[in-house]
Amino acid sequence: MTKVREGYVRPLDIKNGRVDLTHGSGGRAMVQLIEELFARHFANEWLAQGNDGALLPPAGGRLVMATDAHVVSPLFFPGGDIGCLSVHGTINDVAVMGATPLWLSASFILEEGFPLADLDRIVASMARASKEAGVPIVTGDTKVVEAGKADGVFITTTGVGMVPEDLTLSGDRARPGDVVLLSGSIGDHGMAIMATRENLGFAAPIVSDTAALHGLIAAMLATDAEIRCLRDPTRGGLATTINEIARQSGVGVMLDEAAIPVNGEVAAACEFLGLDPLYVANEGKLVAIVAAADADTVLAAMRAHPQGSRAALIGEVVADDHHFVQMTTGLGGRRIVDWLTGDQLPRIC
Amino acid sequence: MTKVREGYVRPLDIKNGRVDLTHGSGGRAMVQLIEELFARHFANEWLAQGNDGALLPPAGGRLVMATDAHVVSPLFFPGGDIGCLSVHGTINDVAVMGATPLWLSASFILEEGFPLADLDRIVASMARASKEAGVPIVTGDTKVVEAGKADGVFITTTGVGMVPEDLTLSGDRARPGDVVLLSGSIGDHGMAIMATRENLGFAAPIVSDTAALHGLIAAMLATDAEIRCLRDPTRGGLATTINEIARQSGVGVMLDEAAIPVNGEVAAACEFLGLDPLYVANEGKLVAIVAAADADTVLAAMRAHPQGSRAALIGEVVADDHHFVQMTTGLGGRRIVDWLTGDQLPRIC
Repeated sequence: MTKVREGYVRPLDIKNGRVDLTHGSGGRAMVQLIEELFARHFANEWLAQGNDGALLPPAGGRLVMATDAHVVSPLFFPGGDIGCLSVHGTINDVAVMGATPLWLSASFILEEGFPLADLDRIVASMARASKEAGVPIVTGDTKVVEAGKADGVFITTTGVGMVPEDLTLSGDRARPGDVVLLSGSIGDHGMAIMATRENLGFAAPIVSDTAALHGLIAAMLATDAEIRCLRDPTRGGLATTINEIARQSGVGVMLDEAAIPVNGEVAAACEFLGLDPLYVANEGKLVAIVAAADADTVLAAMRAHPQGSRAALIGEVVADDHHFVQMTTGLGGRRIVDWLTGDQLPRIC
Repeated sequence: MTKVREGYVRPLDIKNGRVDLTHGSGGRAMVQLIEELFARHFANEWLAQGNDGALLPPAGGRLVMATDAHVVSPLFFPGGDIGCLSVHGTINDVAVMGATPLWLSASFILEEGFPLADLDRIVASMARASKEAGVPIVTGDTKVVEAGKADGVFITTTGVGMVPEDLTLSGDRARPGDVVLLSGSIGDHGMAIMATRENLGFAAPIVSDTAALHGLIAAMLATDAEIRCLRDPTRGGLATTINEIARQSGVGVMLDEAAIPVNGEVAAACEFLGLDPLYVANEGKLVAIVAAADADTVLAAMRAHPQGSRAALIGEVVADDHHFVQMTTGLGGRRIVDWLTGDQLPRIC
């Protein structure tokens, strides 16, 4: 893209500048922000079309579309930031449908006064996540609201992918006898956010697990095993995701507490803050409901992938007219694992 | 969809209730908000899948993807509200690419304490706009931020559509000799917002032109005329849109002030507030760059459609190495019509 009347405009002061209302007004300042910040990081042929939307190549198969608003606070946390999170979160929502994620859109709501240096860092992180995942950000939008009418930056990403004709993964396909697989430890993302917010000074900082899961999912699908459903246990944590599946499929689930991996520092932080890791958000973990006969095949494929090295069989699907999720505890008892009812962790993603 | 543990939960108090943080937490309250408010209004087979994304049928042709965040203030205004605006705006961004809009996603950022009755009214308006346009909202997301960290509700919509192989409309296709067509009066949306904000009491209220334009566009494309480019002059108004096209195509444009329709009350409000209607946002108008030989054909098609009844030929594309947009004024003079530089109208869409 060429600059708008190059001679007239000073380059954006990314180091010391701040977002102001003109950056959202549709005029020269907005074009400058788009070119010198967004397009510089996201550079790709579709964005370079410079139209109101992106014109993309034909794609075979059925479309999958998913969207997520991101309002995480703080914007920067150990292991990531709102930028990469907004790319990973939507890629994962597309990928758990069995689809190959192809394109992303990104829409920014900026608060007047937000430092351009922070915006630049966030957008660079998005661009990196997008490139690593091989899923370009092909179109976008920027709005600016007055100081005090937002909280720094909110980012909504929407993803489009394609799923082959013969593959349907859905939360209503779990059947009694199926097994529940989990790709790794739970609670890392949520507790990374909470530890930052609460200024908890553990010896080892808790690091968010934010990651794009489509590579792991592709490896699992390549086994041709009977995978009924995949889901990433984000807001509401593992407990809520398992309850969603139980309800959609009209089944119960029996989890085994001892089989669910929780990192030591996450367990400690949860205890300190009175939180249950089952309800804490993850941003790089996967739950798979799989036919029992294929459990070993899928587990092996997961463990052979870096993102699934700690994959575990954590429970089984059972017949239950109440669609309860229960858990056998360390002491040999059982407890009901209900939906998240209150608001354990606001603004976690 | 069935209710979450029906016995446990009281129905949402849509009349007197307010959004709280639990509505965004991923748990039971969020499911209830989705079912009793969003899904009730948006009801369609794709949303009913209840997964993290929507699985859509295969679609022929090339994909078009467009996204827009909506932060308009006030949320309700004569002629519309943030709900229908968020549907129209994104449908239009897809349609001006020559694509048939097929699906929308909707992502909500809600401020804690926002009245559920207002949310219900907004979502009902989105649903109505979506149904009228024949473009379903197939997937969505809801986040809630603390009181004071947003401004009521922000809505990001993303649209996907399909464009036939042999059609390419793009801002870089304008050529000297082409004509500039405009579908109707300018400034109505922006001045409806401003008049509401400023409490201007005109005899006749100014009504936003917010509307989905894909029907008008389909009628224009059906003529098989040589249409180079379509664009909806939203933020920054007609002046900015024409400048964008001039720049993308590397041409100049000569507009004829007398040919540009402006409603009397809009002109009066602009004069009162010291605004130039050329820079005021529209949400239901269209600019078309068309080969001169086809001007009459396209104009006739526009005028035969209710949304183009006042369509006019407002200028022509000229060779100009500076890519200036100029306008012949009522007095026979000429002036340069520059990009919007300051921030004339924040939060207009």
